[in-house]
Amino acid sequence: MTEPAVRHTVELRVRYPETDQMGFVYHAHYLAWCDIGRTELIRTLGRSYAELEREGTLLAVSDASLRYHAPARYDDLIRVETRVEEVRSRTVTFAYVISRVVEGAEPERLVSARTTLIALTRDGTPRRMPDFFVEGLRGSLAAGAA
Amino acid sequence: MTEPAVRHTVELRVRYPETDQMGFVYHAHYLAWCDIGRTELIRTLGRSYAELEREGTLLAVSDASLRYHAPARYDDLIRVETRVEEVRSRTVTFAYVISRVVEGAEPERLVSARTTLIALTRDGTPRRMPDFFVEGLRGSLAAGAA
Amino acid sequence: MTEPAVRHTVELRVRYPETDQMGFVYHAHYLAWCDIGRTELIRTLGRSYAELEREGTLLAVSDASLRYHAPARYDDLIRVETRVEEVRSRTVTFAYVISRVVEGAEPERLVSARTTLIALTRDGTPRRMPDFFVEGLRGSLAAGAA
Amino acid sequence: MTEPAVRHTVELRVRYPETDQMGFVYHAHYLAWCDIGRTELIRTLGRSYAELEREGTLLAVSDASLRYHAPARYDDLIRVETRVEEVRSRTVTFAYVISRVVEGAEPERLVSARTTLIALTRDGTPRRMPDFFVEGLRGSLAAGAA
Repeated sequence: MTEPAVRHTVELRVRYPETDQMGFVYHAHYLAWCDIGRTELIRTLGRSYAELEREGTLLAVSDASLRYHAPARYDDLIRVETRVEEVRSRTVTFAYVISRVVEGAEPERLVSARTTLIALTRDGTPRRMPDFFVEGLRGSLAAGAA
Repeated sequence: MTEPAVRHTVELRVRYPETDQMGFVYHAHYLAWCDIGRTELIRTLGRSYAELEREGTLLAVSDASLRYHAPARYDDLIRVETRVEEVRSRTVTFAYVISRVVEGAEPERLVSARTTLIALTRDGTPRRMPDFFVEGLRGSLAAGAA
Repeated sequence: MTEPAVRHTVELRVRYPETDQMGFVYHAHYLAWCDIGRTELIRTLGRSYAELEREGTLLAVSDASLRYHAPARYDDLIRVETRVEEVRSRTVTFAYVISRVVEGAEPERLVSARTTLIALTRDGTPRRMPDFFVEGLRGSLAAGAA
Repeated sequence: MTEPAVRHTVELRVRYPETDQMGFVYHAHYLAWCDIGRTELIRTLGRSYAELEREGTLLAVSDASLRYHAPARYDDLIRVETRVEEVRSRTVTFAYVISRVVEGAEPERLVSARTTLIALTRDGTPRRMPDFFVEGLRGSLAAGAA
């Protein structure tokens, strides 16, 4: 039996404009990395978020929280691990662990975060998420809990 | 007796690159607006954050949380209200209310947020915040509680 | 006779996330400041760019060039001077001078830039710009040449 | 004889915050993609730009020009082709072609660009680029001309 990805992992490299004069990544950019994390998790559920949006389901962030443990630096290789934490008919919560990949050692945890997204129509009205999508998210959640 | 600003208010206009294809402001940019809010609050305490940093105190965000009530749109006039919520020797927590200014009506609340910052030396080691700064923040806090 | 603004001037303060680890403003952000410059120039012509877009005229950048003379730094007060350089039925070219405002001295030139914008329908098809808008731009151009 | 890469190619996926309400990528972000392009080209010359900077050579953009042929969209797979166009002792010019990768078809050209960078010390004084770096860039240039 194939299991959906429990923790979806994606890697990226820190870009120069993501740094600030402190020499670290500016704290707001981690939210964009969380976005990349859930985008790639969603892609494994059978349809990309881009398609979901074209079909009329927009996912807007309604809550976000981040804890910063250590700073990312320019050119670091970053790992974003994303998992589904809670699924309702109109909202989904993702949890993220963002780490620095260190050759020959354990990844170093930089940020842990959580975002809740609410499904909207193109007009901005809350709506139920499509069934296939809720099922995919629940499958991912169940696999994670197993 | 002059009171320090209890809620510091700053206004800004939404920039085109802050919008995304959903037609709203991308959720990460509100963190940059919170940054502007606390920067202007800090300026009223006698020294700018730029000076604070040149003198060896860096303030790095250690925790952030945001609740999104309604979306900001391109060219909206935005108000950021910032207040000091908690002050310790090495950390300070700010609370923010971000609203849309609507002519002839009450501002519309868009986002409420909270960030905790930790004082660091230039090497990234935690340090006590300068006395004048802690006192300024505490004055602002006390005035707010009165 | 009221003359349209020849060089429209707008001021802004450098934001922390606009800096990079070199300690300067990242070079791409000046394009966003040019955008602010032309947005405010356009506002003086009777309708905001936001309204123009809602009425079906999108202005997309087709060419951009920038020369960087000196770097902007965090918390600098920046002046963006914008003028209309050329107007055709479907395109308009703006020229910009971006300077640092220095108290008690001449502003220091940081960047000179030029962008050409092409008018598009919402589908992305090139279109003529609205008459009032072309006339406003030509008025600004003529006043500048006088 | 091994030849250095003549045109260095790197691919990336368009991120949601890179879009704007027009539904396209905001024009300033292409400069960040050019940055990624030359960073990866530089990496093939034996040392990363991050190392170059740690060793005291900063490369600051002194000129940039971009021509926008067609817009990138969210989730597009983007190819950045970078080549060295001119090398002097203190400056280097890179040329870029940014395309959309289209399955089963030729890539579609979106933007062509050019940036000149000047070598600076950590204080911002112009300096000669390190010999190994000039030689690497010249090798790449020569290979491209062959």
